[in-house]
Amino acid sequence: MTIARRRAEIEFHLFDVLGIDEVSRWPAFDGQDGTAWRSVIDTAEQLALSHFAPHNREADHREPWIENGKVRTVDGVKEAIAAFAEAGFMNAHRPVDEGGLGLPWTVVQGAFALFQAANIATAAYPFLTIAAANMLSAFGTEAQKVRFLPHLGSGRFLATMALSEPQAGSGLADIRTRARPLEDGSYALTGTKQWISGGAHALSDTIVHFVLARIEGAPAGVKGISLFIVPRDWVEADGSLGAFNNVALVSLLHKMGYRGTTSTILNLGEAGLCRGFLMGEAHRGLDYMFKMMNEARIGVGLGAAMLALAGFHCALDYCATRRQGRPLGDRNPDQPPVPIDQHPDVKHMLLAQKAYAEGSLGLCLYCATLVDRQQRHPDPATRQRSGVLLDLLTPVAKSFPSAYGPKANDLAIQCLGGYGYTRDFPVEQYYRDNRLNPIHEGTNGIQALDLLGRKLTRDGGDAYRALRATIHADLDGRSEPEIDELIRAWRRIDDAMTVLLVSFSAGRAADCLANASAFLDAFGLAVIAWRLAVQAHAAERSGKDSAAARGRRQALKWFAAVELPRVAPLLALVERCDPVAAETDAAWL
Amino acid sequence: MTIARRRAEIEFHLFDVLGIDEVSRWPAFDGQDGTAWRSVIDTAEQLALSHFAPHNREADHREPWIENGKVRTVDGVKEAIAAFAEAGFMNAHRPVDEGGLGLPWTVVQGAFALFQAANIATAAYPFLTIAAANMLSAFGTEAQKVRFLPHLGSGRFLATMALSEPQAGSGLADIRTRARPLEDGSYALTGTKQWISGGAHALSDTIVHFVLARIEGAPAGVKGISLFIVPRDWVEADGSLGAFNNVALVSLLHKMGYRGTTSTILNLGEAGLCRGFLMGEAHRGLDYMFKMMNEARIGVGLGAAMLALAGFHCALDYCATRRQGRPLGDRNPDQPPVPIDQHPDVKHMLLAQKAYAEGSLGLCLYCATLVDRQQRHPDPATRQRSGVLLDLLTPVAKSFPSAYGPKANDLAIQCLGGYGYTRDFPVEQYYRDNRLNPIHEGTNGIQALDLLGRKLTRDGGDAYRALRATIHADLDGRSEPEIDELIRAWRRIDDAMTVLLVSFSAGRAADCLANASAFLDAFGLAVIAWRLAVQAHAAERSGKDSAAARGRRQALKWFAAVELPRVAPLLALVERCDPVAAETDAAWL
Repeated sequence: MTIARRRAEIEFHLFDVLGIDEVSRWPAFDGQDGTAWRSVIDTAEQLALSHFAPHNREADHREPWIENGKVRTVDGVKEAIAAFAEAGFMNAHRPVDEGGLGLPWTVVQGAFALFQAANIATAAYPFLTIAAANMLSAFGTEAQKVRFLPHLGSGRFLATMALSEPQAGSGLADIRTRARPLEDGSYALTGTKQWISGGAHALSDTIVHFVLARIEGAPAGVKGISLFIVPRDWVEADGSLGAFNNVALVSLLHKMGYRGTTSTILNLGEAGLCRGFLMGEAHRGLDYMFKMMNEARIGVGLGAAMLALAGFHCALDYCATRRQGRPLGDRNPDQPPVPIDQHPDVKHMLLAQKAYAEGSLGLCLYCATLVDRQQRHPDPATRQRSGVLLDLLTPVAKSFPSAYGPKANDLAIQCLGGYGYTRDFPVEQYYRDNRLNPIHEGTNGIQALDLLGRKLTRDGGDAYRALRATIHADLDGRSEPEIDELIRAWRRIDDAMTVLLVSFSAGRAADCLANASAFLDAFGLAVIAWRLAVQAHAAERSGKDSAAARGRRQALKWFAAVELPRVAPLLALVERCDPVAAETDAAWL
Repeated sequence: MTIARRRAEIEFHLFDVLGIDEVSRWPAFDGQDGTAWRSVIDTAEQLALSHFAPHNREADHREPWIENGKVRTVDGVKEAIAAFAEAGFMNAHRPVDEGGLGLPWTVVQGAFALFQAANIATAAYPFLTIAAANMLSAFGTEAQKVRFLPHLGSGRFLATMALSEPQAGSGLADIRTRARPLEDGSYALTGTKQWISGGAHALSDTIVHFVLARIEGAPAGVKGISLFIVPRDWVEADGSLGAFNNVALVSLLHKMGYRGTTSTILNLGEAGLCRGFLMGEAHRGLDYMFKMMNEARIGVGLGAAMLALAGFHCALDYCATRRQGRPLGDRNPDQPPVPIDQHPDVKHMLLAQKAYAEGSLGLCLYCATLVDRQQRHPDPATRQRSGVLLDLLTPVAKSFPSAYGPKANDLAIQCLGGYGYTRDFPVEQYYRDNRLNPIHEGTNGIQALDLLGRKLTRDGGDAYRALRATIHADLDGRSEPEIDELIRAWRRIDDAMTVLLVSFSAGRAADCLANASAFLDAFGLAVIAWRLAVQAHAAERSGKDSAAARGRRQALKWFAAVELPRVAPLLALVERCDPVAAETDAAWL
C-alpha cells in the first residue's frame, strides 16, 4: 500500500504541480507524452517492488563482507541492478541516438525516487554510475565515450566518484593523489582514496573510478586538480577487459546505515602501474566534478526526501490502527481507546512529517524541471533563467531534505513508540540510512557557505531576484493567512539580503559567513513554504474539499504556524554578524 | 581522557554549582563531607572505566541472544554489575542502618552518571533495580522488605518495572493483566507484559518483577490498577529460591540501540501458577509506580545528558586534531590546513553540544539536590518547597535531555563527518542509544501533558511561582546581556501563564493541551538557560578569565542568541490555542 502512495505522490508532483505535460510540446521531447511517462513511473514502481524492496532489510542486517578476497553482497543486489539497467533506467535521460530513452530529467528523477525509497543502498550503485556517465557524456572525448559509455549504460560496468582522501574530505584543496604523464598520453596514478561508495564489489565486470588527482607540478589548491578515468581492470578501446589496473581495496568501512552500499578505502598504484585517462583539460577537474556534484546533490536531497516520505507513510498506517488513550476532553475508561492519530500531539508529528517530506520532494522535483528547462527549453531566455535558479536552489535541495528528512524519520519513530525503535518496523532503518545525507556530497555546512558565500551574493544578488520574481508569480493575488505569513518571511529575507550585500561589499564576508548555516536554515524554510503553497494550490485545483487538498492545506498551515516564525530570529543572527561562534576559542570548551 | 573530563564535569556541578558541601551540615548526613563524596565519585570513575566501558561496544554489536533456552549476554556484563553492587552502589542512598551507605542522592546520581556514560545499556540493570528497591523501601511491608531488599541490594536479584502491555504503552488505563486473590493472601497473576527492560537474563539468581495488574472486580481505568511483586522464581521468606514462578519469556525484542539491555515480552501464569505479593493498598498501584517513575524519569534525563556529554567530548577531541580547510578570510592553499575547531560553523556545533549536554546534566543534578532537600533538609518549609519544585521540573528533566541529547549526538556525528557515521568512533552508538530516551518512561508527549495539564496549572500556578522566585533569587542583580535575554524569556512565560490559567479556568484546557509539546519545549529552553547562567556564574567565581569560565559563558551566550528566540513563537502557539493540529482529520494526510 505504501509504495502505491509513494507513486501517487510522485505523479501528483510531476503532473499536477509541475505540469510536466507541457514538456511534450518542446521539440526535444517530440513524440513523448504523459501516457508514456506514466508507464515509465509504472515500470519503476514494479521494479522497485519486485527487485529493490525485497532485500532492503537483509542488506542492512548483513552488510557487505569479504570472502576469499572478494567483496560479497547479499543475494538480490546484482539482479536488481541488472533489472534496472535492462529496463533502460541507466540511460533513461540520454538521447535516443546515444542509446538512451530520451526522457525528461524530471521523469527520470521521479522514477528514480521510487528506487531510493525502496532501497536507498542498492539504488546508490546506479545513482553513482548515472552521474558519472552524465559527466563523461558532457566532458569526455569521443574515444572515452565509446570506450566506457555503452558499458556504463548496460550496467556491465558500474562507476564511483573518487574525490575524498583520508586527510581531505570537505577540504578538497589538499588532495594528494598524484598523476604522472606516460608516453602514450595516459597517466600513472598513485594515492589513497577514502569514503568511496561502491568502490569494491562483484556486481559488475569492472568498476570505473572517476578520480581527482594532481598532475605532477600542478599548482597548489583547487586550481591544480584534474579528473581521471581509472578502471579497476584495464578497459580496451572495444570495451573488453585487460589486466588488473592496481586499484586495490584497502578496507571496507562499516557504517551506521546505508549499509548495503560498500564504503571503501582504495589504494591506487601501490603494487604496480595504475593507469588512467585525463578527462577534459588538465587542472579543471573540480569544475567537471561539480557539474556532476550539483546533480548528485539534488539526488541526495531526493533520496532524503523519499526516506522521509516512506517513514511518514509507515507512521500514518500505524497511527490509524494503533488504539491508545482517550480524547483530551473525555477520558472515560469505559469507552474504548481511540486510534492515536486522533490525538493532537500525534497529528502535530504527522503534519510535520508531511510538510518536511512532501516539501522536500517537491523542491527536488522542481529542481529536476529546472534541469530540463535549462537544457531543453526552446526559449533561450528561459534556459538561462532556469540555470540561474537551479544553481541557487541546489544547496537548499541538498540540505533541507537531508536536515529535515531525518527529523521526519525521528518523528516516525516517535509515532510508533517502542515499536518504532525496534527492527521489526522499517522506520529505524530509514532514520539510520538518512543520517548519511547531511554528510556526503558536501556537508550541510559546506552547502551553507556555497549558498551565502557564492550563489546568493555574487552578481549583486541577481539569482535571488530571479527567485523572488518566480515566487511572486506563483503566489500573486493569493491572500490566505498562511500565504501572508510566507510573503512576510520572504520580505524579511529581502531585508536581510540588503544588509548582507552591503556587508559583503564592505569586506565583511567572513563575519557574515560565521552564521551561514543559520541563513541556510532560514532560506530553506522559506523555500519549502513556497513549494508547499504551490503544492496546496495544485491539489485544490481539482476541488478544495477533497481529503488530499485539505491535507496539503493543513501541512502548509502547520509549516506556516510552527516553522516560519523561526525565520526572523535566524536572519537576525546573520544580519548582526553574531560573534558568539567566531569569538569562541575552542580551547575554552 | 574523556572519562576524566566527565568526572571533572560531575564534580563541578556537585561542588561548585550545587554546593553539595552544605549538605554535610544537615543532621541526616552527619559525619560525611566533600572528601568522602569525592572518593565515591573516584570509585565510580574507576569502576566505570574498568568494568563498564570495556564491553560497551561489543554488547551493542552482539545483542543478547538465546542459547539452550537461556538468555545470554556478552562477557563482562555480569562482572560489571557484581563490581557495582560490591562497591555498595546498589544501596548507596539507603540509610546505613538499612545496609546502605547513607549518601546524599545528589552524590549517588553524580556517581551513577559516570556508569551511564560508560555503558548505558549495562547501567540499565542496576538503574531499574535501584528504582524498584526505593519503591519497595517506601511502600512495601516489613516482611516484603526483609524478603527482597537485601538481595536487590547485593545484586543477587535484579528487578524490572513491568507496566506496559502489547495494547497498553502510554495508555496504562487499558492494562489487562489480572490478579486473583489466593487463600494465603498472595495473588495469582495472568497476562502479557511487553517492553520489559531486563525482563530476562542470566545476570542474577532471579529477577523480581514489579507488575501493574488489575485485581478481579477492580474499577476500570487507572483507579483500578494495583502493584505486585512477582519474582521469576519463587522467593522464600529467608530469600532462598523455590520453584519457577511461571514468568516466561515470550521473545526478545531487537532494538536500534540500547542493545545490551534485554527488552522482552513476558507471559505471566500461562503454563502454571504465577504468584505475586500485593504491594501497599489495592488499586493504588499507579501512585506507587509514579513515585518510582518520577525518579526514573530524572534518571532517563541524566542518561541522555551523559550520552550527549560523552559525544561532545569525543567531538572536541576530534575537532582539535583534525586539520581541514583554511580560515574564511585567508584561503591560501600554501598554508597548512587548520584544525577544524577553528571554523565558525564547527564552533557553533560544539557550542550547541556544550549547552545541551551541560545544561541537561546540570538540571538533572539540580533535581537530585531537590530530592535530598525534600527528604532530608532540616527545615520543613524547605522540604515542602523542594518537593513542589521537583514535581514541576521532573517532566523537563526527562524531556529536555532526551530531546536535545540526541541533537547533541547528531551534531557530534556531523563534527566527525564520515568518520562519525562509522562504527570506528563511538558517536553513532551514542546517537542510537540516546534515541530510546524520548520514548521510554513516558514519551515526551506524555511529559508535555503532565507539565501543562497537571503540574503547572494546578493550585492556581503555585509551583510555577515557587520556581520563578528561585530563578529570581539566583539571577538577582545580574545584568549581562544574555541574562537580560533570559529574564525576558521568563517574563514571556509569565504572560503565557496568565493566559493559560484563564483558559484552563474557562474550561478550555483541551484546546490549550493541543499544543502542550510546544509549551514544554519553550519552558524547557528557559529552564536550561537558567541552569546555564547559574553554571556560568559558578565557574566565574574562581576567576572570569579561566578557559573553563569563558567556555561556560560562551555556551550561555550561544544558547541565549540561538535558542531563546524560539521561546516566544512557541508560546504564541499555545496562547492562541493554535488549531492546526486539532482541526486536522488524519484521513486527510
